[in-house]
Amino acid sequence: MSDPRPARIAALVDGLSAAHLDGLLLTGLSNIRYLTGFSGTSALLVVTSRDVVFITDFRYQTQVVEEVGDIARISIEASSLWAGLWQQLTTLMSVRVLGFETAHIQHRDFQRLVEAGARWQWRPTVDLVETLRERKDEGEIARIADAANVATRALDRTLQAVHVGMSELQVAGVLEKALRDEGSEGFPFPSIVASGPRSALPHARSSPRTIEQGDFLLMDFGAEVGGYCSDMTRTVVIGKASDEHRAVYDVVRVANERAAKGVRVGMAGRDADAIARQYIERAGYGELFGHSLGHGIGLEVHEAPRLARTAEGGLPEGAVVTIEPGVYRPGWGGVRIEDDVVLGADGPHILTQFPRELIELG
Amino acid sequence: MSDPRPARIAALVDGLSAAHLDGLLLTGLSNIRYLTGFSGTSALLVVTSRDVVFITDFRYQTQVVEEVGDIARISIEASSLWAGLWQQLTTLMSVRVLGFETAHIQHRDFQRLVEAGARWQWRPTVDLVETLRERKDEGEIARIADAANVATRALDRTLQAVHVGMSELQVAGVLEKALRDEGSEGFPFPSIVASGPRSALPHARSSPRTIEQGDFLLMDFGAEVGGYCSDMTRTVVIGKASDEHRAVYDVVRVANERAAKGVRVGMAGRDADAIARQYIERAGYGELFGHSLGHGIGLEVHEAPRLARTAEGGLPEGAVVTIEPGVYRPGWGGVRIEDDVVLGADGPHILTQFPRELIELG
Repeated sequence: MSDPRPARIAALVDGLSAAHLDGLLLTGLSNIRYLTGFSGTSALLVVTSRDVVFITDFRYQTQVVEEVGDIARISIEASSLWAGLWQQLTTLMSVRVLGFETAHIQHRDFQRLVEAGARWQWRPTVDLVETLRERKDEGEIARIADAANVATRALDRTLQAVHVGMSELQVAGVLEKALRDEGSEGFPFPSIVASGPRSALPHARSSPRTIEQGDFLLMDFGAEVGGYCSDMTRTVVIGKASDEHRAVYDVVRVANERAAKGVRVGMAGRDADAIARQYIERAGYGELFGHSLGHGIGLEVHEAPRLARTAEGGLPEGAVVTIEPGVYRPGWGGVRIEDDVVLGADGPHILTQFPRELIELG
Repeated sequence: MSDPRPARIAALVDGLSAAHLDGLLLTGLSNIRYLTGFSGTSALLVVTSRDVVFITDFRYQTQVVEEVGDIARISIEASSLWAGLWQQLTTLMSVRVLGFETAHIQHRDFQRLVEAGARWQWRPTVDLVETLRERKDEGEIARIADAANVATRALDRTLQAVHVGMSELQVAGVLEKALRDEGSEGFPFPSIVASGPRSALPHARSSPRTIEQGDFLLMDFGAEVGGYCSDMTRTVVIGKASDEHRAVYDVVRVANERAAKGVRVGMAGRDADAIARQYIERAGYGELFGHSLGHGIGLEVHEAPRLARTAEGGLPEGAVVTIEPGVYRPGWGGVRIEDDVVLGADGPHILTQFPRELIELG
């Protein structure tokens, strides 16, 4: 596969020109990784129509040459990246007006721009790189698909090990070990293992609670491969499912399947959200589905586009999004079923191939 | 143990008064947790001499009442926390000049203050709460000690399972599962398992590399208990250690022990750093110890105070800090030995009780 970075930088440079900027200072690490391939955690990047300048610290001396050496001019700083920035900027001719990333710079560092960087004019920019990142290329989709496969294989192994009497933390440990054994580079977010009434908390963390017969067990987790994330959720019943378990589960399952099959390139995010939401509302559970249907995934586990009631934008071709309807009955339990879907020109393709039928464990 | 939060808020109010502020807007989640106990990830907090106002979203409706209900007035927002902020601020009488946390607010949100919040005057503040957090109370030290014990027990179990042929990712999986089994609520930072030449990378991540005879195996990881972190590193040899392994290891071990025993309340951070650094320099490895000696730990895995060449401040009583000297020979391997130490009036106490003698595995 050819190196995708030159085309990404060229697309950004087009955006800068349209915004009347001589260059852009990047401080968001995922945006920097997208443009350069750098996987470390300390970097500043400047992109102009002529130059790509990369500034990092001595800890990444070896790594940065391997990852970034063929795409950017590298500057290694002993102490402050910002001192390196001023030095590098003075070498760039006819660069006077620079953008900065308003969503990725702390006020403290913004103050550096207006004080130590007063020689240049600084303009806030929004989502210049994020918008490019919405449309995944083949290599990106392949990595997300790998991360989805790691997640489904890890879940399969985990379900064989779960039994009554384990704590949520222990289940998380089994799941996370399986993710590592399958090759996950890390955990894109803290795994959620929530059982019984805790499965009704839309933002639960794993706890010491012991799993009991008749519990819902909700597992929301992801893998990371080549820097790209997957994000999936399955909810199972420990022991025999009651009629009420089945009723709630089936509503969520059908909502998931309708949305995962019905989402299309060009559709507004709110219309995708509505596919699942209207089904859940008609079933009488609308009040119990309090969050959005989904979000983009890629280098970050939450990125554009959004699938939500307030999302008016059209979904672009190549976007990879989660489809994650849920129904949560406080004090009793909740169900969420989440898949990762890539939006192709020929329709949606589900990356997280794992059964969606209700599983009764043990 | 009595509730520590009222005294913390009172100490902050003293600081506000000294800074001629009518109140402080808090956006840093660890600072918010310290003052209120809130463990979620979406919150704004306003503290004045008369009021404590807490703003979160509907997902935390149940949790916030339990965690924060007795210390703050709670406002639950359906959409934007910021809309809730303006509404709440207008109810606070004689509040005109407010501080904000310059290190914990993105420029995008700072723009909200100067635009939608233009009715009030906004002043940047630095480390008002961080300074309070440096001195841990008994309850905090107990939680960090628990997190240290979880980490040492997990390492003990992991070393029994490690063998030639496992990948670094597999070792990370075993270690992380053991941390969960011992009760860790999460991972304060991505575990580092680095073997052979990769142990010389001061910022390695775990990789698919297979462990071989004669490798150094470096493990840098932590646990979380009650929101508080531990952070420890041990380096072992796979198989029989060579003379060179032993020479490098012993330098780091003695540097660790001297610093862990020699660090004192009131000592400047740079003088603590110098205990280990001078020993390593005299042994001829000064160039290969490229990072600082240590940092505070608590609700965050990196917090004040710093133990570094540039740290002039005196170390406060009750601080919990890491002591983590290392020697890294590029292309060959590296050793780091890291412990967590609480600074008592009667001297330092090591929380991570785990052997520091060189271990040869298998």
